[in-house]
Formats: sequence, structure tokens, C-alpha cells
Amino acid sequence: MNIPYTFDLAPSTWIPSRYDNHIIRKLSSMKGQYYDTQAFDRLLAQSDPLLYEVYELSRPSVAGELLHGISIIHPGKVGNEYYMTKGHFHAVLDTAELYYCLGGNGMMVMETPEGDWAVEGFTAGKTLYIPPRWAHRSVNVGDLDLALLFIYPGHAGHDYGTIERQGFRKLVLDEGGEARVVDNPRWVHLEQIKSLLL
Amino acid sequence: MNIPYTFDLAPSTWIPSRYDNHIIRKLSSMKGQYYDTQAFDRLLAQSDPLLYEVYELSRPSVAGELLHGISIIHPGKVGNEYYMTKGHFHAVLDTAELYYCLGGNGMMVMETPEGDWAVEGFTAGKTLYIPPRWAHRSVNVGDLDLALLFIYPGHAGHDYGTIERQGFRKLVLDEGGEARVVDNPRWVHLEQIKSLLL
Repeated sequence: MNIPYTFDLAPSTWIPSRYDNHIIRKLSSMKGQYYDTQAFDRLLAQSDPLLYEVYELSRPSVAGELLHGISIIHPGKVGNEYYMTKGHFHAVLDTAELYYCLGGNGMMVMETPEGDWAVEGFTAGKTLYIPPRWAHRSVNVGDLDLALLFIYPGHAGHDYGTIERQGFRKLVLDEGGEARVVDNPRWVHLEQIKSLLL
Repeated sequence: MNIPYTFDLAPSTWIPSRYDNHIIRKLSSMKGQYYDTQAFDRLLAQSDPLLYEVYELSRPSVAGELLHGISIIHPGKVGNEYYMTKGHFHAVLDTAELYYCLGGNGMMVMETPEGDWAVEGFTAGKTLYIPPRWAHRSVNVGDLDLALLFIYPGHAGHDYGTIERQGFRKLVLDEGGEARVVDNPRWVHLEQIKSLLL
């Protein structure tokens, strides 16, 4: 029914009292996403840990609707790179997203197709606005679950392929207990390459 | 600059650390909105109390953007009717809105042009999804500020006139210390009247 609805968020687990889809992402679904491929393979040989979960509410994929839900990134690392989401552009590039941090400690790694990048920190109560055109990946740099309420336009869609090819321009690594933002050696400026080839 | 940004919310006041517009609504701007017009006039003769405030972040009014901010409805009553927002439809009816309650105790009163109505309660942590087509008004039924984070599509716009004419179908009144949802005697079903006249 197309009537208003509410949901509560359970403190500490942040699981919403109502949802339509529960997506789980284990290590095995993140192949090629972590820079330390040996650490990735070693960890996967032992087990296939759960990295993050998304609780989605279902709404129609049209411009006037707002898709929303809760993403929960668990604490942990692959080598010295923190657990993180796949990250994506929106298929309709000119669509924004808003995040409200419910709990935990994290970072949002962002970039545009033109090669601009940005990283913002998350603590409880922090609100982040991601303007249209910015790809985004959530990273848990703390010891507790990172829980985020997200909202984006119904017609946005997802483009995972661009990020899967070479990751984000920046990595977030644990260096002696501190979260550091460093260059991703695998990343190249696709627009620059295109202009050199043409 | 079209780059990502964050803001924090000051606990207890809920004023965001960053905003572009600060809208204040005093009693005098709510003429005709409270059912007890004598109580309204008496109160206005004494003073012009501040009923609510909205802190807005500015974004372009286009479909891919998300307009967002914090609304803070102060505690109080006009007669036995609680402080509340003007309430409105979106000018583009087919646009939704999402609310996250930061603190306080409230209700959202909602209705469609077809005469359907709904009321949902707010406590800290409650998330409310208002599908497209539902007019909405926030009501503070508690003793503290009611603070709400709101997000809606950039192209939604506002239509205040329809509500100004006759208010919402339901009122929220203090009856012996309890918030009660009652019929608004002034409300008539415009669609029914239209069909009788035609």
C-alpha cells in the first residue's frame, strides 16, 4: 500500500524494525577490490567473513521517490585495508545521496569521473551530502559497526563496473592504528588515457 | 562549490553546524491555522511566540538533488492545539519526503488530495517515509523541542495554499495531558464538493 510508514532502529545493532531486502556482502564478493591480493587470498582460504549488510526499503525506481535503508559495515581489515563497501557511481550520474551516521567511526571515499576526489569522516550524528556525479564507498575505520542511514533519488540506479575495474583513486589503510588516506597505485585517470589515445 | 560536505548536529539544540537559510515562523505567520481563533488572538495580543525554525542547506531545485535540513518545532500550545508547522503538499505532487527524528516527541499529520489521512508518531530515532502525494505537518506533542532531519527531491516545490484554506482533516489536541487526533470541523472533502457541483 502506498501509505506513510515508519521504522525504528535497534540501538547498537541498528537493524531497522521494518525492511524489504537484506543484502549481505561477504569477502568472496569483493574479489579484486582490495589492493593486497595476497592478504585477500589468505583470508578467503581461512573463511569468508561478512563485510557488510544493507537493509533496504522497497520503493518504485522513479524520480519522485526516495530509496532508503541502513548499511552496516562491520569492523575488520583485509591486510591493512579496512572493511568497506563495493562503492559505485549512480547509473544516472546527476543524482545525489545523503547519509546520516547512526553510529561507529568511518570514512566516505568519493570521486568524480573527472578525477576529483574527497574523503569525509563519519561519527554518530554526522550528516553527509554527496552532490550528483560523485562515486562513493563507505569504510569502517573503527572497532564497532559503522551504521549509516542512506537516501537517494528513486531513478538513480547503480554503476558498479567503473569502480570494479580499478577501485577508487584513494585507499584507506591502517598505519600503526591510524586511518590514513593514500593513493591507490592501481588507479589511472581514464579521461587522461582517453585523451592520450585520441 | 559542488563538492561533498558534512554537518554536525549540536545535541539538545539540534542546530546544524552548517546551513544556508534560517527560517523562523512566529505565531503571527500562522493566522487561520489554529482551530481556536480566540485563543490564537489572545496569545497574539500578549506576544508573538516563535513556533518553529527551519535550517536549510541550499541545493539546486532539480530532480537529481536532495533538499535537506533540520526543522525544530518548539513546545507549546495555542489553546489546546499543539505548536505545529504550516504543513504543505509538494507542488510536484508525485514527490516523497523522508524524516528522521533526532529528538523530542511529535506526530506527523498527513493527507492526500483524495481525502485519505494518516498520523504517525515521532520519538528519537524514528524514521518516517512519506510517499508521493501526501501533504504533511509536524506537530510537537512533548515538552522539549521536536527536531527532525528532512530530505526531499530537489524538484518537489511547495504548495501551502491548499492547506491554508481549510487546514488538515485531523487536528492534534491536548486532552487532559494526552495527545488526541480529532476531526477538524472546518475540513471538507474538496473532491466531493467538486463532484456535487459538476
